[in-house]
Amino acid sequence: MISFNVILFDDFETLDAFGPVEIIGKLPQTYNLGYFSMNGGTVLSRQQVSVNTLSFSEVDTTGILLIPGGMGTRKLVEDADFIAQIKSLSEKALYVLSICTGSALLARTGLLNGKNATSNKLAFDWVRSTGSYVNWIRQARWVNDGKFYTSSGVSAGMDMTLGFISDIHSEETALDICKYVEYIWNTDKSNDPFANE
Amino acid sequence: MISFNVILFDDFETLDAFGPVEIIGKLPQTYNLGYFSMNGGTVLSRQQVSVNTLSFSEVDTTGILLIPGGMGTRKLVEDADFIAQIKSLSEKALYVLSICTGSALLARTGLLNGKNATSNKLAFDWVRSTGSYVNWIRQARWVNDGKFYTSSGVSAGMDMTLGFISDIHSEETALDICKYVEYIWNTDKSNDPFANE
Repeated sequence: MISFNVILFDDFETLDAFGPVEIIGKLPQTYNLGYFSMNGGTVLSRQQVSVNTLSFSEVDTTGILLIPGGMGTRKLVEDADFIAQIKSLSEKALYVLSICTGSALLARTGLLNGKNATSNKLAFDWVRSTGSYVNWIRQARWVNDGKFYTSSGVSAGMDMTLGFISDIHSEETALDICKYVEYIWNTDKSNDPFANE
Repeated sequence: MISFNVILFDDFETLDAFGPVEIIGKLPQTYNLGYFSMNGGTVLSRQQVSVNTLSFSEVDTTGILLIPGGMGTRKLVEDADFIAQIKSLSEKALYVLSICTGSALLARTGLLNGKNATSNKLAFDWVRSTGSYVNWIRQARWVNDGKFYTSSGVSAGMDMTLGFISDIHSEETALDICKYVEYIWNTDKSNDPFANE
């Protein structure tokens, strides 16, 4: 079993986290889902969902990391302790997947320097400012570079997670999941209808 | 403000609830999101998300009701007390939206008798058995009949919620939300790529 560690914080964007979770949850023989915040306890999403979490110290660091975005990232990019912990967790992780402005948190760690990445289109200029050495790609539903997967805004996280499964397992596995969750997958990572917003 | 009351129970399907929540959450001037379970307290989704809820007695019954599906519905269709409470809440609600096998819970109340409704495609035969007097429509991404909106499996709930917003507010409002959440909306409720699964 591979631990699939979902990072949460106050004012995270609900679907950023729980869209990918829905997809990963269809492979329960492979992935063990867990929910973590810096100090553990209750976290409140932007859409008022109150979620119970374990603390970062309880993460199985050999697993995969999922980093959502949301308004909470605006404060957290300035939180040196939080960023240091995200850096440490990301360095150890097998893969790191970020959604929407989650890539700003990742950019702040420096780990995306020299790498290709994308982010939310309406917040793109702000995200770009959090990592000057990142090769930010605007026209992309999602981007993969090494062990890092970054997606565009909110819903794009589901397309990316299916792309991740297609890369790691097979396209057939990804399409099977689509059937179970009746999801119309945008299979082409360069097909980004929101790039010009 | 209109209360948007999300019904949760153990083993609910994560995206059934939180896909629509993401969309409704983009109209914070209009809708007040709240999360409720029969007795309140912690509820665990099928994908291991632990959510804190208020009890059914705390629902503002003048609002809108959202009923997700998931494996938890298999037990709950046999729980007379739960079904009676869902019936009472649904009768009072301004609108009732169900996702996936959430329509089985609604069918059990009798309130869908003589009405058009749909549900998850892989669980369709089971759902049909929970309400013999419902006019179940297989080929539909979502169905609207009076104050009831029912959707196909999991992801279809987001398309339905955008359809609901298009009906109640305007198509422009729904398309604006799509931009914010970078969601590729299947706007046609009869376009159901999973009907023959």
